[in-house]
Amino acid sequence: MTILVPYMTTSKNTLFQFDILDKEANARAGLFHTPHGDIPTPVFAPVGTQATVKSITPLQLEEIGASLVLSNTYHLYLRPGSETVDKMGGLHRFMNWHNPILTDSGGFQVFSLSKTRKVSDEGVVFKSHIDGSEHQITPETSIQIQEELGADIIMAFDECAPADNRAYIEIAMHRTHTWARRCQEVKQRNDQALFGIVQGGIFEDLRTKSAEFISSLDFPGNAIGGLSVGESKDDMHQMIKAVNKVLPENKPRYLMGVGSPQDLILAIKEGIDIFDCVLPTRLARHNAALTRDGHKLNLMNAQYAMEDCPIVSDCTCYTCQNFSRAYIRHLIVAKEMLASTLLSIHNIHTLVTLMNNARQAIMAGNFQQFSEEILGDSPS
Amino acid sequence: MTILVPYMTTSKNTLFQFDILDKEANARAGLFHTPHGDIPTPVFAPVGTQATVKSITPLQLEEIGASLVLSNTYHLYLRPGSETVDKMGGLHRFMNWHNPILTDSGGFQVFSLSKTRKVSDEGVVFKSHIDGSEHQITPETSIQIQEELGADIIMAFDECAPADNRAYIEIAMHRTHTWARRCQEVKQRNDQALFGIVQGGIFEDLRTKSAEFISSLDFPGNAIGGLSVGESKDDMHQMIKAVNKVLPENKPRYLMGVGSPQDLILAIKEGIDIFDCVLPTRLARHNAALTRDGHKLNLMNAQYAMEDCPIVSDCTCYTCQNFSRAYIRHLIVAKEMLASTLLSIHNIHTLVTLMNNARQAIMAGNFQQFSEEILGDSPS
Repeated sequence: MTILVPYMTTSKNTLFQFDILDKEANARAGLFHTPHGDIPTPVFAPVGTQATVKSITPLQLEEIGASLVLSNTYHLYLRPGSETVDKMGGLHRFMNWHNPILTDSGGFQVFSLSKTRKVSDEGVVFKSHIDGSEHQITPETSIQIQEELGADIIMAFDECAPADNRAYIEIAMHRTHTWARRCQEVKQRNDQALFGIVQGGIFEDLRTKSAEFISSLDFPGNAIGGLSVGESKDDMHQMIKAVNKVLPENKPRYLMGVGSPQDLILAIKEGIDIFDCVLPTRLARHNAALTRDGHKLNLMNAQYAMEDCPIVSDCTCYTCQNFSRAYIRHLIVAKEMLASTLLSIHNIHTLVTLMNNARQAIMAGNFQQFSEEILGDSPS
Repeated sequence: MTILVPYMTTSKNTLFQFDILDKEANARAGLFHTPHGDIPTPVFAPVGTQATVKSITPLQLEEIGASLVLSNTYHLYLRPGSETVDKMGGLHRFMNWHNPILTDSGGFQVFSLSKTRKVSDEGVVFKSHIDGSEHQITPETSIQIQEELGADIIMAFDECAPADNRAYIEIAMHRTHTWARRCQEVKQRNDQALFGIVQGGIFEDLRTKSAEFISSLDFPGNAIGGLSVGESKDDMHQMIKAVNKVLPENKPRYLMGVGSPQDLILAIKEGIDIFDCVLPTRLARHNAALTRDGHKLNLMNAQYAMEDCPIVSDCTCYTCQNFSRAYIRHLIVAKEMLASTLLSIHNIHTLVTLMNNARQAIMAGNFQQFSEEILGDSPS
């Protein structure tokens, strides 16, 4: 029942191959090979914005079973600077994560974090959210920065436009396409896979057009950007469906910035392979523990003060194997950093394990049933 | 060359035995047996004020090689409450530290942290530093709280008076003596060793008198309190010398709240076995890395921004084995919690390893040379 669809390597990307090991309807169980190891897909990548997944060590991350970490080009460009990271031996060595890393292009953060900005066909001029200093990122500099950082998967520079203005969304989409080609042209390192990004807001025809164009550039992987930015779940789901009809089957598909268990399961059903999201670590810093069906327990609540049981009784993470809800609540109330560490471990473990279980279900041919279990128990 | 001086157990403390394995002049290498395992001495206990050594997990603490952790009775009494800890299975289970734990009596914190307080022979009435609520701790309640917490080593309730008023110091010393006896009288649990505390400020005659009285109560271990509170190094050293002349040789001696490498080495020379201090974790939160000879590197300094080498080149801690000074500086500048974790690991490891090396040196008969190495390189 295993169907091997090896990715047709290009001369520029001989190190990357995507094997689809099994399928169930549109859902796929795969293996994406990178210079820093294989990524079993579907995969959830925790976010290490500033070259650290907040409040946990790389060793803890490895013990959780994470295989891919995302780091942010915008943040690292500003601090400590990509040149510094390069001189310190690259991002893998700098942050001591020797498994695969993905860097985004900086596009999303430039549009969401920086203050004044001016977009032109050339690129984006913006002011740093840290000190107000002025910078420009262009497709060319985005690739240069990402080549200095040295992640295994790098992303084309894109414009992530506000979702409600069709005319502007279309302009931004075309700009994103031109930029994608420019990124491809300047890319030099052979040990990095450059992924293209599909834009187009919540307009199905634009998404289809964008997916066609991005597919035509024959990237070793393709991403869907500009979703999970405020649109309805239905719109998001529609867009994923429309794009995945077009994107090539034999290349990994990456849905950017999505991380709730329900969204992950629904997207896997539509053929998505890669995800990243700040959700597990952000929830942790807000005292919330995630369950695999998407429920959130706010452990600061007084009801947990005397509960001598783990967050989730059958969870195999370090936190649930060793600490009670009562203890974690105590740490939160006492403002102890360990609360954040223990909750981050649990939350990331929950999503990483959900992906592993989804993968096993696809390979065993019972993903449909598995997805019904998760979605059936989900909060509405 | 090994001299075994087993501690003469009393009926109340059959689980605790102190073996002195070797001596060099006054310095001792020992083994203190407790219900949660043996403590090799000299030992440095990191402080887990609120039932957590700040920013690190118990697993990381175990990997560092720590054998004894101190937790604060005052803090845990106020939050989450010793009754809660008791109901959650006691402190070992609550914080998931299954090696030896020591709790202080609450005395020091009542005098240093709480706002208004009223001391009488009965005990101390004080206002919580958290919410201003009024509480009373007496020798009897201190023991009750510590029995609920369930540490292996518990401390007699003492009055830690300001160091500059001889008349008051003497009153406080006598009160401490009466309280020590009352603690001994109400203590019920057989699986906890109650240590007495010597007070007397910086007055040699008072210290001698206090050591004589505390020794006469035949505790399974004795502590020196009220030092490292602002007095000169010479005064501290004089007091340790005076007290150790009196304290029984065959019982562990604990110098409370002292943690700089120089102070540890000098105190070991005078026959101290046990130490605790917030220094390594507090320095970590202030971006400082400790070296084994007591130098402090402020890793926020710009000079470390491009240093692709560990904090200490031959250090075997997780931090130094895996991360550069440049990376740690980046974490500090980016206000990432991992900075605190990595620095805490290094700093605690430094003191734990210093104690292990001191112990080995005593057993090999070259502690004098070892101490000269450490003290010779120390900052003046």
